Amino acid sequence: MNTKRAAIIGASGYSGEELVRLLLSHPHMELVAVTSRQYAGQTLAQVFPKFAGHPRSKTLHFTEPNAELLAKQADVVFLALPHGVAAEFAVPLLNAGCIVIDLSADFRLRSAAVYKEFYGQDHPAPELLGKSVYGLPEIYRDEIKKSLLIASPGCYPTSILLPLIPLLAAKLIKPDGIIADSLSGVSGAGRKAEVDYLFCECNESVRPYGLPKHRHLSEIEEQLSFAAETKVTIQFTPHLIPVNRGILTTLYLAPAEKSVDAKKISACYRKAYGNEPFVRLLDGKNLPDTKNVTGTNVIEIAWRLDPRTGRLIVMSAEDNLVKGASGQAVQSMNLVCGFPETAGLI
Amino acid sequence: MNTKRAAIIGASGYSGEELVRLLLSHPHMELVAVTSRQYAGQTLAQVFPKFAGHPRSKTLHFTEPNAELLAKQADVVFLALPHGVAAEFAVPLLNAGCIVIDLSADFRLRSAAVYKEFYGQDHPAPELLGKSVYGLPEIYRDEIKKSLLIASPGCYPTSILLPLIPLLAAKLIKPDGIIADSLSGVSGAGRKAEVDYLFCECNESVRPYGLPKHRHLSEIEEQLSFAAETKVTIQFTPHLIPVNRGILTTLYLAPAEKSVDAKKISACYRKAYGNEPFVRLLDGKNLPDTKNVTGTNVIEIAWRLDPRTGRLIVMSAEDNLVKGASGQAVQSMNLVCGFPETAGLI
Amino acid sequence: MNTKRAAIIGASGYSGEELVRLLLSHPHMELVAVTSRQYAGQTLAQVFPKFAGHPRSKTLHFTEPNAELLAKQADVVFLALPHGVAAEFAVPLLNAGCIVIDLSADFRLRSAAVYKEFYGQDHPAPELLGKSVYGLPEIYRDEIKKSLLIASPGCYPTSILLPLIPLLAAKLIKPDGIIADSLSGVSGAGRKAEVDYLFCECNESVRPYGLPKHRHLSEIEEQLSFAAETKVTIQFTPHLIPVNRGILTTLYLAPAEKSVDAKKISACYRKAYGNEPFVRLLDGKNLPDTKNVTGTNVIEIAWRLDPRTGRLIVMSAEDNLVKGASGQAVQSMNLVCGFPETAGLI
Amino acid sequence: MNTKRAAIIGASGYSGEELVRLLLSHPHMELVAVTSRQYAGQTLAQVFPKFAGHPRSKTLHFTEPNAELLAKQADVVFLALPHGVAAEFAVPLLNAGCIVIDLSADFRLRSAAVYKEFYGQDHPAPELLGKSVYGLPEIYRDEIKKSLLIASPGCYPTSILLPLIPLLAAKLIKPDGIIADSLSGVSGAGRKAEVDYLFCECNESVRPYGLPKHRHLSEIEEQLSFAAETKVTIQFTPHLIPVNRGILTTLYLAPAEKSVDAKKISACYRKAYGNEPFVRLLDGKNLPDTKNVTGTNVIEIAWRLDPRTGRLIVMSAEDNLVKGASGQAVQSMNLVCGFPETAGLI
Repeated sequence: MNTKRAAIIGASGYSGEELVRLLLSHPHMELVAVTSRQYAGQTLAQVFPKFAGHPRSKTLHFTEPNAELLAKQADVVFLALPHGVAAEFAVPLLNAGCIVIDLSADFRLRSAAVYKEFYGQDHPAPELLGKSVYGLPEIYRDEIKKSLLIASPGCYPTSILLPLIPLLAAKLIKPDGIIADSLSGVSGAGRKAEVDYLFCECNESVRPYGLPKHRHLSEIEEQLSFAAETKVTIQFTPHLIPVNRGILTTLYLAPAEKSVDAKKISACYRKAYGNEPFVRLLDGKNLPDTKNVTGTNVIEIAWRLDPRTGRLIVMSAEDNLVKGASGQAVQSMNLVCGFPETAGLI
Repeated sequence: MNTKRAAIIGASGYSGEELVRLLLSHPHMELVAVTSRQYAGQTLAQVFPKFAGHPRSKTLHFTEPNAELLAKQADVVFLALPHGVAAEFAVPLLNAGCIVIDLSADFRLRSAAVYKEFYGQDHPAPELLGKSVYGLPEIYRDEIKKSLLIASPGCYPTSILLPLIPLLAAKLIKPDGIIADSLSGVSGAGRKAEVDYLFCECNESVRPYGLPKHRHLSEIEEQLSFAAETKVTIQFTPHLIPVNRGILTTLYLAPAEKSVDAKKISACYRKAYGNEPFVRLLDGKNLPDTKNVTGTNVIEIAWRLDPRTGRLIVMSAEDNLVKGASGQAVQSMNLVCGFPETAGLI
Repeated sequence: MNTKRAAIIGASGYSGEELVRLLLSHPHMELVAVTSRQYAGQTLAQVFPKFAGHPRSKTLHFTEPNAELLAKQADVVFLALPHGVAAEFAVPLLNAGCIVIDLSADFRLRSAAVYKEFYGQDHPAPELLGKSVYGLPEIYRDEIKKSLLIASPGCYPTSILLPLIPLLAAKLIKPDGIIADSLSGVSGAGRKAEVDYLFCECNESVRPYGLPKHRHLSEIEEQLSFAAETKVTIQFTPHLIPVNRGILTTLYLAPAEKSVDAKKISACYRKAYGNEPFVRLLDGKNLPDTKNVTGTNVIEIAWRLDPRTGRLIVMSAEDNLVKGASGQAVQSMNLVCGFPETAGLI
Repeated sequence: MNTKRAAIIGASGYSGEELVRLLLSHPHMELVAVTSRQYAGQTLAQVFPKFAGHPRSKTLHFTEPNAELLAKQADVVFLALPHGVAAEFAVPLLNAGCIVIDLSADFRLRSAAVYKEFYGQDHPAPELLGKSVYGLPEIYRDEIKKSLLIASPGCYPTSILLPLIPLLAAKLIKPDGIIADSLSGVSGAGRKAEVDYLFCECNESVRPYGLPKHRHLSEIEEQLSFAAETKVTIQFTPHLIPVNRGILTTLYLAPAEKSVDAKKISACYRKAYGNEPFVRLLDGKNLPDTKNVTGTNVIEIAWRLDPRTGRLIVMSAEDNLVKGASGQAVQSMNLVCGFPETAGLI
């Protein structure tokens, strides 16, 4: 299999760092460029001592981001940048023939209007919205394989969409009244010097935030609406909890009709994910626990039908930086590059 | 004001330890006895070095629990014991004229049948169920003042009932379809040597547990049904998060009718809790954060009406060992003893 | 006892916040002013929701710091400011007759030259160096009572000096070759928005820093030299550990002669601290644990003579924000104001 | 390269779990047996959901430990058992021709008398003490390659010996007066249901323990004495800190003579470890940080000469479960099996 060359624009944040880790050990990829305005000139080993054992770490220097130059160096370029900024780089890279995998929100939505509603600014490259694919491999595997612009999903959306889409597509649950209650580790806030994310502000603390209209709702609801074939509006409450990594989502759902029983739900999930390498359906008494997925590209899913209330409770656990960000981006890259989907991920 | 004498049966667990802390510094109470089978013979200072600065800590020895003896020593006896065991002590203590404040589940329910359903055993003293008062001072202040047997509420129930009861009593929300999603610190599991609660099993971990039928549902639903004047069945999902202390509850509610607006909800809470010393209604952009209540008897409450879904989201934060257990028990004690309600608690 | 009025300049950092907590509940003090450039105009309750239960919290507004104005409002002014800045405020406040308790390093040293060596700048008010008292009450109780300018010690120095001074003064240990290995919680770094102190950078991390010449060495060595009556140079290694609060110091010492045995060491400590309300000498098998002092003004001290090496190991634990900063400052305030030394501290 | 078959006796503790992780992904090993009295009958996937993605996890069942049976199944057997118990299994396995890699203390010492002094019991198989090799590959590489019984070092010893041995062997430091101050994560205490290691007892706590005569001193001093060619006695203070993984050791040393300068120390370490794949010598301003080695087999080492005291301070960081236990054991296995030393470890 031919090795391909990868570049990461914005490699010094938590998602970027995790991309570095995954690409350095990927069997079919060579990491040829990493950019960071802050660390330009320093080597990977200097900025991230933990990668110092890798031979590339001492020769690979962070550079200022330059799309033109990167397009010549790399076959695949990952954008680990804030929304709004990512699109600026995507256009020239695509024009130069690169595969672009964007971890920001810039290409996740089909609608420039929804982008403006949730992100408060005009979309910087609306003409590309129809060309990108939403990078959720379990749902859009075939489309990802053929796309040159992959919009890798957000961390919360991944934890919500994977458990919900099969149920909605199979009409097993009602598309209205869905509630997603999510708990996220602090790395979700990024490597930003803000008082709110200092150790002493997060340790021994639990708090909701960003409700009732978190930005991730836009992509969640767009994708759920596709699956349900009707407009879906959900309730979403994110909370910050004192762990580095992990998202635990609890979903409160109403079965579509009384005949929806454990057997049907189990069959639906088995059919959707029984052969998926990165979806772990828990059985017996097991419930998701973020510590079981930390550092992996796996999402755990479990569910309970509550006979007292008639509700279906579905829970998921993922590592927000792997399946919720960089691991999933590499999974998409494997697909578009024709590598085995699990290459470098198990 | 006359000082009264207090004893704590089961003083070596986390709730017991917190009771010791509160009673040692209480202006109108003298802690005269603490029991613990495990530590009998040792002083308070030996078992809990952090209390060593208090003069009583070096003279007060843990003893084996003996109801008869304690009844002679103390005016008020706190039971910080497992359910089932507490009732055994309550009977002789009440007969001997003591005020009994029970932190277990034994006297929280009105119905022995519900007790059996949720706790899996016959109630050990069903004749007392009609005599106890549910020790939620903000709701049952007058009854507590006159009772000799106070069943102090559980930690989860407190975090759920205080935000819900005023809304239900005022018919502002629908009594069905209520969802309570709760996050608890590890001290809620008690000082028990179990692998599940080891540091390495809880740190960097978040997990749901005990769903869909946690024992605390019994008292929560009984109390909500009283408030709503109709049978209430709720959805409740507890999660374990890596903090020592704190419960954060997020409630998903449906306004009773379209006319229920921010003004009405605000007025309802102001009326119910505007003068309560231990309920903090947050306004503006503030949201509850467990770190703001740690070590205090305060519960923080905030709410949001979501115009997209029509739902009312209410959030609360409390210290599970204080307002959720020992602080609330002392608050009740203050009422029944005729002390200022906030004595020793602020 | 007459109530006195207190002001805090720089009340929004961690030490300032802890001072607010202690002064709000102090029986003989009224907190009349808090300053913060960042939060000027907001109330205490707005900036620190956890103080919202106190009646003063809703009327007391943060102001811009103004020494002239504060001098009219307050009898005692606490400076919780960076070094260099504190001195600017101290001069006008002292001139106006206020008692000044400075938590910065500005007045801890006797020598302006040492100040310059360690802090890299000329001392801003060298004429005051002879007037201040080093605010370690267990050592300078009488001097503190008579001083108007108290330089409250640093957190590391307190954890090192209290265990060492009695041993040095009694010539039980050699004054050279002393090693202090200290572990500090993250609040010691202050409420500063720096990447190094983000939750994800500190959690699941332990690291030394600032060696071999940490600034606190200047005051540590000056004080040790006074006690030993000879110049003392020590080895000091601070480490950052993932707790909010607490300093654990381990001291490696050489007994002055072979005749120094357990009995002499024990007698020395008993004599020095046997009646001190805030020094807890541990006996038996007990060793210091930061969780036993968190939130209190207590320092725990234990020691072991190692027959294998001949060394004396002394360990101490304190809350870096209380005994290591604000609690100790209030202890000094109690002395200078003529209040009971423990007022507001137990 | 021929694949070899591995078995793990005692695979349910933290070291055992880490061995499972490393062996499941090892390119030249097949994990054929795991034992655990507690979990016998369950599959790997049931006991450790995080391994569920591996094909072996659903077919490999925990069994009762049976040396005879295991000897037939496996070429290499890892003993992750308490000291005293390990030796019982080692004898029959060695007799049956297996390679035995013991992670307990049973074969680390040359002297049965020292074993008895530190472990309080007669050595169960003193005849084997002369046959085992101390499994520190950087020091005993050639011996390990030829041995059938490898005594893998303890976690603290590894963090102390690797930084010290080259300095002692080169006579750059004095062999007496050495101090090792170590900070360990809680996994070092094992997966034992004891109150001392509950989340709430460790979180927000730092404490020394086990001094002045921790069991690991026996192997540390034996190995240091070999390196120094003279009897070495050191001071060792372990501390428990609230992280899952990681040991940070700070060493206080005296240069052998004044001519020992930075150049000589640097040269010594470069010569000893410049080509070692798992020793990372930090330069510039970098200091060890456990988070940079978590999950890896790397030990970080940095040092500072203090001109004020004349001392040499050396610091190391390792993952106690990897380089401090299971990773190092696999490194030794690679040597004895003739695999590349880094196989399965990077």
